[in-house]
Amino acid sequence: MSEHQGSLIVISGASGVGKSTVIAEVLKNRKDIYFSVSWTTRQARVGELNGVNYHFTDRAEFEEMIRRDEFLEYAEYVGNYYGTSKKIVEEKLSQGQDVLLDIEVQGAAKVKENCSYAILVFIIPPSFEELERRLRARKTDNEKKIEERLQRSREEYQEISHYDYIVINNQVEMAAKEIEAILTAERCRVSKRINITKGV
Amino acid sequence: MSEHQGSLIVISGASGVGKSTVIAEVLKNRKDIYFSVSWTTRQARVGELNGVNYHFTDRAEFEEMIRRDEFLEYAEYVGNYYGTSKKIVEEKLSQGQDVLLDIEVQGAAKVKENCSYAILVFIIPPSFEELERRLRARKTDNEKKIEERLQRSREEYQEISHYDYIVINNQVEMAAKEIEAILTAERCRVSKRINITKGV
Repeated sequence: MSEHQGSLIVISGASGVGKSTVIAEVLKNRKDIYFSVSWTTRQARVGELNGVNYHFTDRAEFEEMIRRDEFLEYAEYVGNYYGTSKKIVEEKLSQGQDVLLDIEVQGAAKVKENCSYAILVFIIPPSFEELERRLRARKTDNEKKIEERLQRSREEYQEISHYDYIVINNQVEMAAKEIEAILTAERCRVSKRINITKGV
Repeated sequence: MSEHQGSLIVISGASGVGKSTVIAEVLKNRKDIYFSVSWTTRQARVGELNGVNYHFTDRAEFEEMIRRDEFLEYAEYVGNYYGTSKKIVEEKLSQGQDVLLDIEVQGAAKVKENCSYAILVFIIPPSFEELERRLRARKTDNEKKIEERLQRSREEYQEISHYDYIVINNQVEMAAKEIEAILTAERCRVSKRINITKGV
């Protein structure tokens, strides 16, 4: 990693934890952060825009991109593909910009494998009861899907020790402030700033 | 280290870099931080108060405390002893409070040796020319002492790779904000919060 590179921050968290809302708040406060929009084969939800929330695509095209080695990571999750474009992330980092990725646990592990300098952040709900309440309030999934997501979240908790930071989404503003503090702190890392002290 | 413990943050930096001013700003904004007042055998400067800036003492008493193993670290620096009381730091940490220490490089290394979980932060000036200007403006040292301090600072820069974070004191408020971000980020560390996710 070049010492002039931006930080690569990966955000994971259970469906329904409010990850997108927290990330939107961070991006509102920190215009200097580049948010990498993922590719997915899942259906767009009401209000979601192509190129903004996700790059929506179909399985055939996604699998073609896999063959062309265009993903930093990709994973299949609850029947759909999700992937991160390698080229744009590397470009932004080398320009010294911090890059934020919203990726589930499998994908985050792959990013860490490829980029050992990646910083992994896990957003958790204040409690599992609250997560269930939020998932139902969202009204985007049927009962089976909700159960699937809750089960998946419990499994993902087992992986949390591979992460660097845990952010609790009790209040969106507080959770966003914690992520912003992590971004600021990571910029102060000796590995990022050691060059300033050289040649004195 | 207990997962409920506070963070132990050690701040180092060259004489004249404005460390005390930056720390004062952090403590003003973050009343929840405990600042550990060091013991020293050096003369109090005009305006410095016993028990506030330092616990001022003489060599005989300091050496008696060394014999009683009462220091987390102590070091001799430009002809004077400086040391950190073990008991109070351990007490505050175990109560879950974050503790800030202002220690020079030798002492910081000893703290890290004794407490591997300590977070080391190095405050640097925007440039060495600026550091020299600040030292002269302080009017507390004669020419020989200033040269000694500058030489010492250059040597200390060699140790910076053992630190976790570098904070640049260009503007006091900015430097304080960076330290506050580090404190917040460190509280989000998985090692500090993993317990929340257990037993779900």
